Amino acid sequence: MTEPTARRLTLGALVHGSGGHIAGWRHPDARPDGQLDFAFHADLARTLERGRFDALFVADVVAVRGHQLDSLSRTGRAEHFEPLTLLAALSLVTEHIGLAATATTTYNHPFHIARKFASLDHISGGRAGWNAVTSAVPLEAANFGHDSHLEHELRYHRAEEFVQVVKALWDSFDDEAVVRDKATGRYYDPSGLHTPHHRGEHFAVRGPLNISRPPQGHPVVFQAGSSETGREFAARHGEVLFTTQHEQGAAQAYYADIKARAAAHGRDPAHVLVWPGLSPLVAPTETEARRRLAELQDLIHDDVARRLVQDNIGDLDLTDHPVDGPLPDIPATNRSTSRRDPLLKLAHDEKLTIRQLAHRFAAGSAVAGTPEQIADHIETWFRSYAADGFNISFPYLPGPAEDFVDQVVPLLQERGLLRTEYEGGTLRENLGLPRPAARDRHLQETGR
Amino acid sequence: MTEPTARRLTLGALVHGSGGHIAGWRHPDARPDGQLDFAFHADLARTLERGRFDALFVADVVAVRGHQLDSLSRTGRAEHFEPLTLLAALSLVTEHIGLAATATTTYNHPFHIARKFASLDHISGGRAGWNAVTSAVPLEAANFGHDSHLEHELRYHRAEEFVQVVKALWDSFDDEAVVRDKATGRYYDPSGLHTPHHRGEHFAVRGPLNISRPPQGHPVVFQAGSSETGREFAARHGEVLFTTQHEQGAAQAYYADIKARAAAHGRDPAHVLVWPGLSPLVAPTETEARRRLAELQDLIHDDVARRLVQDNIGDLDLTDHPVDGPLPDIPATNRSTSRRDPLLKLAHDEKLTIRQLAHRFAAGSAVAGTPEQIADHIETWFRSYAADGFNISFPYLPGPAEDFVDQVVPLLQERGLLRTEYEGGTLRENLGLPRPAARDRHLQETGR
Repeated sequence: MTEPTARRLTLGALVHGSGGHIAGWRHPDARPDGQLDFAFHADLARTLERGRFDALFVADVVAVRGHQLDSLSRTGRAEHFEPLTLLAALSLVTEHIGLAATATTTYNHPFHIARKFASLDHISGGRAGWNAVTSAVPLEAANFGHDSHLEHELRYHRAEEFVQVVKALWDSFDDEAVVRDKATGRYYDPSGLHTPHHRGEHFAVRGPLNISRPPQGHPVVFQAGSSETGREFAARHGEVLFTTQHEQGAAQAYYADIKARAAAHGRDPAHVLVWPGLSPLVAPTETEARRRLAELQDLIHDDVARRLVQDNIGDLDLTDHPVDGPLPDIPATNRSTSRRDPLLKLAHDEKLTIRQLAHRFAAGSAVAGTPEQIADHIETWFRSYAADGFNISFPYLPGPAEDFVDQVVPLLQERGLLRTEYEGGTLRENLGLPRPAARDRHLQETGR
Repeated sequence: MTEPTARRLTLGALVHGSGGHIAGWRHPDARPDGQLDFAFHADLARTLERGRFDALFVADVVAVRGHQLDSLSRTGRAEHFEPLTLLAALSLVTEHIGLAATATTTYNHPFHIARKFASLDHISGGRAGWNAVTSAVPLEAANFGHDSHLEHELRYHRAEEFVQVVKALWDSFDDEAVVRDKATGRYYDPSGLHTPHHRGEHFAVRGPLNISRPPQGHPVVFQAGSSETGREFAARHGEVLFTTQHEQGAAQAYYADIKARAAAHGRDPAHVLVWPGLSPLVAPTETEARRRLAELQDLIHDDVARRLVQDNIGDLDLTDHPVDGPLPDIPATNRSTSRRDPLLKLAHDEKLTIRQLAHRFAAGSAVAGTPEQIADHIETWFRSYAADGFNISFPYLPGPAEDFVDQVVPLLQERGLLRTEYEGGTLRENLGLPRPAARDRHLQETGR
């Protein structure tokens, strides 16, 4: 156990060249070619570092984001840099900010993943983070030889073994094992090498990993599980947890639940950070902020609006339905309806058109307001234990990111919530997370 | 067809922090911690760019390099950066030099490989190169769930399909398809998107790739096939071919053979560049150069000497044999003996001890001499059609690389063999290779 320290706000930011809002790339001030412009990403990373963000984060799917290629053609979601190449390059133009990315356990192999994040951790001097996901986009399956997505429980079963193997690979060399002693000719001490020889249900991985133990011991593990199985996985392995809670009460309930689960697994709840999503749009007045959000919503093409509703509700073809009319009757489904039922009720109760519903989905966790209002939102959620920090997605780029850093960050610093200088040299140190100390510590932690 | 241009020398350099010689890391002037020191790699990359090298190249295996972990512990081969993270970072500290790396088709998936190299090509402005190998290190199999290495012909069969899929993925978007037109809301033109929908013997990959066509069209494809199957594969797909020829005559024969094979596949032989390995050690006099090489050889530990001989001859345990004694009798083997037979004959004819044989293997393609002698060697091989260029491996770092750039490169430039300024903006342009122009061009090229 480390010394208890005062609870402090931590911040991450999603990095996506075309912005977090689905029409963000069309905003008059947005850079339409941002997705593949490295210099644009570099500027954004430096802006975030100036704002003392703990980490920037690259979301990822191993496919284009969406089945319907015609509506996809109206979004900036068709292309993005491969995350690890992007983050390695960004490590050269930043000094402090953490560099985290999604990598799926369903369509990858543990040896490759352990290596890439270990290498990034070495290149960046201890700033790597891995968001371990099990994939939720069916199109990914089709890129890896599968006709359909692996079943949910099986994905998590595989993920559990995957993470165990990755941690064992990271621990191949003890911290002090690589001595590089020219005189004796010993590059490493053989007694400090621990070859995993893993043979499990999903993987057989002999090891060892072909790189020294990462500077952080283990790169920080991010997670975003929301189902029962997902929350248990997050509580066992996650160190920063993304969650899509939009309501403070629901966020508090999630927060309490995940901290209790972590404690039940013998972990210090302070070492499991909860980061709801937040999409801030700052303006001098609330009215102006709302106008800016509405302006962005109006840039959503009709085809994209239909697709947003289809993708969120599922089993639905809206092609021939007027976008300013109501939802058609929804066919029965044998899939889980825990997500779609409240959406259907919402549409019915508030008599929303397809477009209005699309705007709700597109807005997501948007908070449009003055700098004070945004800072209040953050402070309220933080102090009420709805959040330890936030995963911030700027609706378009770069304006809203610069506005947040120049106008909201100083308020958070004045209120004593946010650092004015980075505390540590690694992402783990800045987040206040302990460095995994010993080989097999993760095995002990999970009771294996 | 492009305009015929004068044949020109091209140069690549292996980048490995501990040097190309197995004892390189122990040299008094070597940096023992070079393997994981990014700044050291950055300095080397800039040195090579100053020497107008076409490309730097990161060799790779997805395992530690060697079964016998005790002798491995006496080499710098136990760890290295993951190549694509390293190259992405190096793209930020260089402007012109190509960035190539090995990635195996046997223990990877085409979607991941297509993406990583496409992303690197975008980040670096068209400087990526992919060395497509089928893996030769049995330990790699054990890291990916296999008890033994896939059989040779099967590996090449898989590689053929793998490369086809990767090229089709690179061609997902036409060059002009991504228009990013804010006014009409079209990010890309749907008619310019070509989803591969590949279903083959080894892979089912729907696609499309989630990134625009690479700046080079296709990153440059490197290859190193030496068997009959490997040469055919190289002749179909390879644009730069590594080869380990140590004798000028053998190199000329390989050169003629591979160019003829390329022509038979309908390719312009000028677009298939042959790069033998070369490990130059420069000194003011030949005597001094030879002394420096001997000094390096003397740093090979006895255990490493035994392992070198075992690894090169195979099916052999030298643990209890004096390293200054002869080879023991070799047991019969049912494996291919085309490699071991000449080695055994050499050891017998020249009455070599285990150590002396190890020194032969460790020296490899070493050429120790004055700057003029090294330049003569390069010029002779180039003008006699034994080489279009060289894959240069410096025995240790950074001294021999700096000596080569400062003392040999100017001679090559004076003789009109090597550029004084980079000709083009991309690796492909510098190498004089055409940009794959159209979708499915690779299918037409290979007659499919």
